[in-house]
Amino acid sequence: MTKTAKPANFNLPERETIIGYKLRRAQLLVFQDFLHTFARMKLRPAEFSVLAMIARTPGLKQTEIAEALGIKRANFVALMDGLEARGLADRRKGDIDRRSHSLHLTPEGERFVRKMVATWNEHEKRMIERLGGPEDRDRLIELLDRLLAGEPSADE
Amino acid sequence: MTKTAKPANFNLPERETIIGYKLRRAQLLVFQDFLHTFARMKLRPAEFSVLAMIARTPGLKQTEIAEALGIKRANFVALMDGLEARGLADRRKGDIDRRSHSLHLTPEGERFVRKMVATWNEHEKRMIERLGGPEDRDRLIELLDRLLAGEPSADE
Repeated sequence: MTKTAKPANFNLPERETIIGYKLRRAQLLVFQDFLHTFARMKLRPAEFSVLAMIARTPGLKQTEIAEALGIKRANFVALMDGLEARGLADRRKGDIDRRSHSLHLTPEGERFVRKMVATWNEHEKRMIERLGGPEDRDRLIELLDRLLAGEPSADE
Repeated sequence: MTKTAKPANFNLPERETIIGYKLRRAQLLVFQDFLHTFARMKLRPAEFSVLAMIARTPGLKQTEIAEALGIKRANFVALMDGLEARGLADRRKGDIDRRSHSLHLTPEGERFVRKMVATWNEHEKRMIERLGGPEDRDRLIELLDRLLAGEPSADE
């Protein structure tokens, strides 16, 4: 086992140009900034997305939100349990289909969402500044949309 | 509990323009394509990165690779156990520091890496085509690098 390494040419890709690798690093950085920004409010990115959807369209069904956000059903149920336990949102029996629950913010949840949006603005402003400005944010979103074009919702 | 939802204005961000949300969706899409492409070879993205680093620089220490790739120590040990069990790489006692292990590909690992690079090229070509071409890939990488500028290695 004292054989020395042969110089081998594998035509390996340059790591820093690999799309998936670089996307993962950037996503982790943005999520870490998000988690740090929201540490006091104890809010995770998926909870942010769910609260924002309920705030925008009260009465949406659990399955509608889970599908739109690409959250697996079991994860979504646990997430909603958490929001309900914190008194931020509640499940109500649907008017038409009594078996399906529609989701609403509580008054406490409405106050929370207002604070959440203000806090989020700080985080996003920092990310946009890193990118170079709003035009660069738009360029990034446009490129990511090309990757995502025609894809169904992704599972998390 | 029959109160109807008040129309509320929370100044919510438009979901499709949120940097973190869009990055996460794009990263999941690229990783899903990677996993699908490598299903037969049973290779995950982090294993790809580790094998590529060992192939490029035989003899690197475990800690050097884990740090460069932003993989937590416990996860890295489990990953290396897997590669070793498959006969693709091995840990050797260091020449200088006998307690630290340096990592090398086995001959089987070298064959595997050649096939891995060919398979990866298919995957990356598909991603570059989705983006619009190599220039668009470069634009995306450049924007992601701005987000990452000045950051230490991120933990996974």
